Amino acid sequence: MNPTIKILQSHRSIRKFTDQPIDARLLDDILSAGQSAATSSFIQATTVIRIGDSDKRNALVELTGGQKYVASCAEFFVLCADLHRNQQQVLELGERPDYHWTEQFLAATVDVGLFAQNMVIAAQSAGLGVCYIGGIRNHPEQVSEMLKLPDLVYPVFGLCLGYPDQNPDKKPRLPLTAVVHQDSYNLSDSVKADIVKYDDAVKAYYIDRTQGQLEVSWSQQMAKQAAGQSRPFMRNFLENKGFMRK
Amino acid sequence: MNPTIKILQSHRSIRKFTDQPIDARLLDDILSAGQSAATSSFIQATTVIRIGDSDKRNALVELTGGQKYVASCAEFFVLCADLHRNQQQVLELGERPDYHWTEQFLAATVDVGLFAQNMVIAAQSAGLGVCYIGGIRNHPEQVSEMLKLPDLVYPVFGLCLGYPDQNPDKKPRLPLTAVVHQDSYNLSDSVKADIVKYDDAVKAYYIDRTQGQLEVSWSQQMAKQAAGQSRPFMRNFLENKGFMRK
Repeated sequence: MNPTIKILQSHRSIRKFTDQPIDARLLDDILSAGQSAATSSFIQATTVIRIGDSDKRNALVELTGGQKYVASCAEFFVLCADLHRNQQQVLELGERPDYHWTEQFLAATVDVGLFAQNMVIAAQSAGLGVCYIGGIRNHPEQVSEMLKLPDLVYPVFGLCLGYPDQNPDKKPRLPLTAVVHQDSYNLSDSVKADIVKYDDAVKAYYIDRTQGQLEVSWSQQMAKQAAGQSRPFMRNFLENKGFMRK
Repeated sequence: MNPTIKILQSHRSIRKFTDQPIDARLLDDILSAGQSAATSSFIQATTVIRIGDSDKRNALVELTGGQKYVASCAEFFVLCADLHRNQQQVLELGERPDYHWTEQFLAATVDVGLFAQNMVIAAQSAGLGVCYIGGIRNHPEQVSEMLKLPDLVYPVFGLCLGYPDQNPDKKPRLPLTAVVHQDSYNLSDSVKADIVKYDDAVKAYYIDRTQGQLEVSWSQQMAKQAAGQSRPFMRNFLENKGFMRK
């Protein structure tokens, strides 16, 4: 196994960072790695807002549900899906582009995922730790206002970067049999049996990690996760921003 | 710059592959790298359909708009956003999960992006070439039928892997000033001036690459890309699949 694959396979989220800043040159390399990712039809729909302002950092801690490392990490970025830039360029050519299609929302969102994951791998290859912050979507309107995001730009997630001050265990993943299917979709009884075994492994992981305080399987976590409403404002928010109106 | 960052920054899409197969062990490493990516709230919403069947490969060439390398690459995968697996697990616990929220569609789609980009980097680190196939969304219903994708599963993109039989130039990306903003969104005149320069660089890239046959700026490409309807069936397709109904 080569060193890059080793880095990829050893990912854990880091939520505690040292004070060490990130060298400007390394930061450029990380961002440039992000930009080098594939982009759907060359749309390049990612915009990265780098948050240095400490008032904004503190406000973002609250807006993301009290995640203090949003303030304490060396670098915090809000990764946005951006079709506004394209729209402006196309308008200047005298055309009337239409960016309201669900397909465009989808493509822009995927673009951001590929860009961000390249940033993550670049950062980890240099010894940094990372944490994605989906909580940026807890209050997307307030985040958009604070960061002055125009129409056709929305915050997909945040990203913390910094030197790790903790060394958590890797979380076990679903068995490959459940995730990789041959030629067609397959959730057979044998695959389901593998998931049952996996549920036990996840339980054991939590028991070990919490000295027996927490005992929860993956399926139980998924049940909790899918109970109730899931950011029920999201569709309206996105449509108001000009996305996926049709 | 370390070797991993070098790999990240040297990405190009490969559309011509040699006949050399991919070693089974390397393939496992690539898939396991994909699984190791971060996942929103541990949902692990990615399912990979590996297409070995040559009839299906050939059908997918047609369904993706005649991209022959979908058949000729060593490995072709359809990367799916999958909340069906979670739904089944949660139903078995006697709960009644609701997966119709736009937020869940979004989180699952991002999960697939991170998973796939890890596969891509693992593959490239081992000397393989890759090509994302967004064209899998040209006919998502037919693809879903062929691959027997149940409700709450949709094909996000395809992915070709194989040993490269071409060595294309790297495509120039937007200037960092346009893509990375400090503390709030910024599409100022100075940034727009950078994009004008970039438009010239893209033109030069195409002139050079096509011996003067093609002379097109990025903004002109974006105008062409945004003219007309963009997979107008996508919203209905996704809603029919159970996604983003609210």
